[in-house]
Amino acid sequence: MIAMGPLIDHHCHGIVPTPLDRSAFEALMSESHRPTPGCSQFDKPLGLILRRFCAPVLGLDPHADPEAYLARRSDLGDTASVLLMQAAGVAGQLIDTGHRSDAILDVGQMAALTGAMAHEVVRIEAVMEQAARASTSGAALIDTFDALLHSRAATAIALKSIVAYRTTFAIDQTRPDRRDVLRAADAWLKHIAQNGWQRLQDAVLIRHALFVALDLCAARRFPLQLHVGVGDRDVDMPNCDPTMFIPFVLQAEALDVPITLLHCYPFLRESTWMAEVFSNVYFDVGFTLNFTGPMARRTMEEALEMGPFFKQLYASDAFGLAELHHLGAVQFRRSFAAVIDDWIAAGDCTARDADRIAAMIGHENTRRIYRLGTA
Amino acid sequence: MIAMGPLIDHHCHGIVPTPLDRSAFEALMSESHRPTPGCSQFDKPLGLILRRFCAPVLGLDPHADPEAYLARRSDLGDTASVLLMQAAGVAGQLIDTGHRSDAILDVGQMAALTGAMAHEVVRIEAVMEQAARASTSGAALIDTFDALLHSRAATAIALKSIVAYRTTFAIDQTRPDRRDVLRAADAWLKHIAQNGWQRLQDAVLIRHALFVALDLCAARRFPLQLHVGVGDRDVDMPNCDPTMFIPFVLQAEALDVPITLLHCYPFLRESTWMAEVFSNVYFDVGFTLNFTGPMARRTMEEALEMGPFFKQLYASDAFGLAELHHLGAVQFRRSFAAVIDDWIAAGDCTARDADRIAAMIGHENTRRIYRLGTA
Amino acid sequence: MIAMGPLIDHHCHGIVPTPLDRSAFEALMSESHRPTPGCSQFDKPLGLILRRFCAPVLGLDPHADPEAYLARRSDLGDTASVLLMQAAGVAGQLIDTGHRSDAILDVGQMAALTGAMAHEVVRIEAVMEQAARASTSGAALIDTFDALLHSRAATAIALKSIVAYRTTFAIDQTRPDRRDVLRAADAWLKHIAQNGWQRLQDAVLIRHALFVALDLCAARRFPLQLHVGVGDRDVDMPNCDPTMFIPFVLQAEALDVPITLLHCYPFLRESTWMAEVFSNVYFDVGFTLNFTGPMARRTMEEALEMGPFFKQLYASDAFGLAELHHLGAVQFRRSFAAVIDDWIAAGDCTARDADRIAAMIGHENTRRIYRLGTA
Repeated sequence: MIAMGPLIDHHCHGIVPTPLDRSAFEALMSESHRPTPGCSQFDKPLGLILRRFCAPVLGLDPHADPEAYLARRSDLGDTASVLLMQAAGVAGQLIDTGHRSDAILDVGQMAALTGAMAHEVVRIEAVMEQAARASTSGAALIDTFDALLHSRAATAIALKSIVAYRTTFAIDQTRPDRRDVLRAADAWLKHIAQNGWQRLQDAVLIRHALFVALDLCAARRFPLQLHVGVGDRDVDMPNCDPTMFIPFVLQAEALDVPITLLHCYPFLRESTWMAEVFSNVYFDVGFTLNFTGPMARRTMEEALEMGPFFKQLYASDAFGLAELHHLGAVQFRRSFAAVIDDWIAAGDCTARDADRIAAMIGHENTRRIYRLGTA
Repeated sequence: MIAMGPLIDHHCHGIVPTPLDRSAFEALMSESHRPTPGCSQFDKPLGLILRRFCAPVLGLDPHADPEAYLARRSDLGDTASVLLMQAAGVAGQLIDTGHRSDAILDVGQMAALTGAMAHEVVRIEAVMEQAARASTSGAALIDTFDALLHSRAATAIALKSIVAYRTTFAIDQTRPDRRDVLRAADAWLKHIAQNGWQRLQDAVLIRHALFVALDLCAARRFPLQLHVGVGDRDVDMPNCDPTMFIPFVLQAEALDVPITLLHCYPFLRESTWMAEVFSNVYFDVGFTLNFTGPMARRTMEEALEMGPFFKQLYASDAFGLAELHHLGAVQFRRSFAAVIDDWIAAGDCTARDADRIAAMIGHENTRRIYRLGTA
Repeated sequence: MIAMGPLIDHHCHGIVPTPLDRSAFEALMSESHRPTPGCSQFDKPLGLILRRFCAPVLGLDPHADPEAYLARRSDLGDTASVLLMQAAGVAGQLIDTGHRSDAILDVGQMAALTGAMAHEVVRIEAVMEQAARASTSGAALIDTFDALLHSRAATAIALKSIVAYRTTFAIDQTRPDRRDVLRAADAWLKHIAQNGWQRLQDAVLIRHALFVALDLCAARRFPLQLHVGVGDRDVDMPNCDPTMFIPFVLQAEALDVPITLLHCYPFLRESTWMAEVFSNVYFDVGFTLNFTGPMARRTMEEALEMGPFFKQLYASDAFGLAELHHLGAVQFRRSFAAVIDDWIAAGDCTARDADRIAAMIGHENTRRIYRLGTA
């Protein structure tokens, strides 16, 4: 079997450090907002591989029952996360800190846990929401956003947008007029003042954030990460097709800003086609490899079906559970090896080429576009 | 090979009892409205498996020629259907009676044929069309619909809507105003009076039917079946994506009404994602397993790729031909076993878990949400 | 392994006869408009199979390095193309001459190169652009288009439209009013006179071209080829879904005009469903088999999953490089054989049926709808 070499996880999140009871644990195994009565999240593909691959890391037999697994995890306390993260063997993590930041470990804590390199990716919508909480006028909000984003970027390695979640990709993709931006900022603050907190969802403000981010990425030579496709119930799926965002992607291409399409499910074919056509488009399959469990090979086959090898990246998109970080690496390594070993056996690929491809996808592409330097 | 255990077919139709000549038989093998001159429906994936699996049930060698098969079927008369239905070994059928009801066997006749449990699923659009034929004013139509639907539901087990066919999912998904409903009902009856029969296609009336159905499902603890994706030429495919119906699905979730997404092809990934996110969403792959013939394993792999095991259901969606009922069960059993046996061989799943998953998908999920009790 | 029999390539383009340096060669390996700095088109699935299968045709070991391959190709000069085209063993080619006609070999030159039958397919948008260059009024343009198209059709075998590229499929699909057509033609010529050349992109004019083409196809019993899905950055992907063009397809069906859906990626399932439902719809997988390289079997599985065997056609969609013609045939033969051999091994298909299916898809369907006569 081909050796994958080092993996750098270019998109993931911190883990929840507190003890978790079964319902809290299962909630982190799912994108669902509400459990199905009488049913368990262990009864899905992710549950099978979690029991198979995580149980032995905690000293249990593979396929331990959920009860036994959770009891052992609880007994081990923080050690469980340390064991799982370190067994993942990841050489580095780029961490999005913009989702439920108060519930999860920060970048430094994650680095301490894994003993590996960690860098921050700044979510622009979270920064604008932070600016809104600190501002009393639209003009102040815009200035504060600008200052905050530049300040956060100083210690970060990339920016990220969840525009697909908040407005979908089916929006005007031109740089908004400053007066419109100020008007939208005023309206948002007024709404908050009158009705309480409202998250950022105005398309003009998000476009403003995107173009400020694009300029900053161009100046700092940062990639810009874009959420694509699957997520929770907020997703308006048909309008999360990344081909709808090509007008913006072309503007990024003109500035030599790499765009990394995250997850991509169920738009993986569209995403690999964009990676073929646009010189600045990269993609990963994110948590799909975890959620598809025993079928992860199909996901990897689709990722390797049309995507240039110099455009695919590794990402676990793990959030909350050290198990998801661990499984992300396990699933990536084994699904990649299964596909490439078959290519070699069929005579389509030499062992030397396989090693090169493994290196590109596992860490070289990420090192190149995030400018991490060599190992 | 794993034993599947009993199958309950949660969505199918009656068979046509009359003798069928070759063109009538081939028409029932297809969603096409018009044959391609010089070509045969046996020359597609369904044709191959029909010859392989149905011919032996009628006493012929596997892969008998179409002519030999149809001659034998004709010689056997009604016995052919009895042999095929009973060889399917299905423990129960939930039968949609709303499509071409006069051409097919009814629920009691189907139960007699199979010797197994059968229950009715009431198609709400058919009931509203029945109400229209019996009404001379919009107000009467609405009252009649209400009365008829409740009366039909009294002996049924679930309701079904083909809203995707008639208006697509891209419609307003709020409960319509009563005045608008009455106005639409009057307009429909007036159109019929002036121009002859017109099937139900008004979005306001269909929304009314959907919300009456939703209330009834909530009160009776019925699931609501929704047609998704493939069908005949009436389908406006891009707007049959079930993710477009999430606003309605959320209202059903608030009422604890299970929504079962039928067929789902080519939106299977979107459907399994919805089953992951929404506590009330279930799915099946319906006749896709028959139409994909030797490739059915790919369909099953996609169904098992991300869908929670407690959310998938078995359905043949067979209509007209006993062969389609038979093949539905054969294809489901063999494609499921092929996938799960590989999971076991790869070490991803224990034999005990495989048996549990088979039971859930084969009958337990259907028993639970349709409240059928245990076997 | 099953013998495929003769292949007729129902949709391809001429090759570029001039010597190519590495960047020109790599540009023809991609749909990209701009190279990714520091990366090579050989580092993708197409690159692997090109090195595997083309290198031996030029007398090198399989998997020769790109440098060695290109040096050898350069040394051989025109002989390289002759070797590659003839090794493809294709019995005939239907050639679209409407894209970069001045850069590539014409139909006669391609026939001389391959030693096999070749026929022309006329791209209607190119003819209308030719008419525009020769016209000074809208009325003259329309008359010239009509005359040119009929004249070109006299020696052709089919027409082709790239309406999906130029306006998407999301357009009015009725025959346009003549006054509107004249007005649009005048406006286009006026724009050209004032601003210089502009390619055809007006929906009214393209609709006019489509309906003139449809009438001509009906009269001459020509198929009409339609570009679907993937292409370069001009593609507005979500609106290139062929199910959006069903209103037009139905009008073609009423006239018994075969519609051949080209490439279809990523809408292959939608396309095979249309081939199932509409008597006049055919499909191919085009260059996808080249671009998916070692994973081409997945593409073929999807093509054979639901599509009637009497509806699939072989096409390489090769443009520019003899390598793409060669690989198209290699990939089609090996992916088809891999799938069908498994069907036979599984007992789903007899060897005799496999031969019939191979003949239908490899050449019989193309012979029938393009009225080529038997071999």
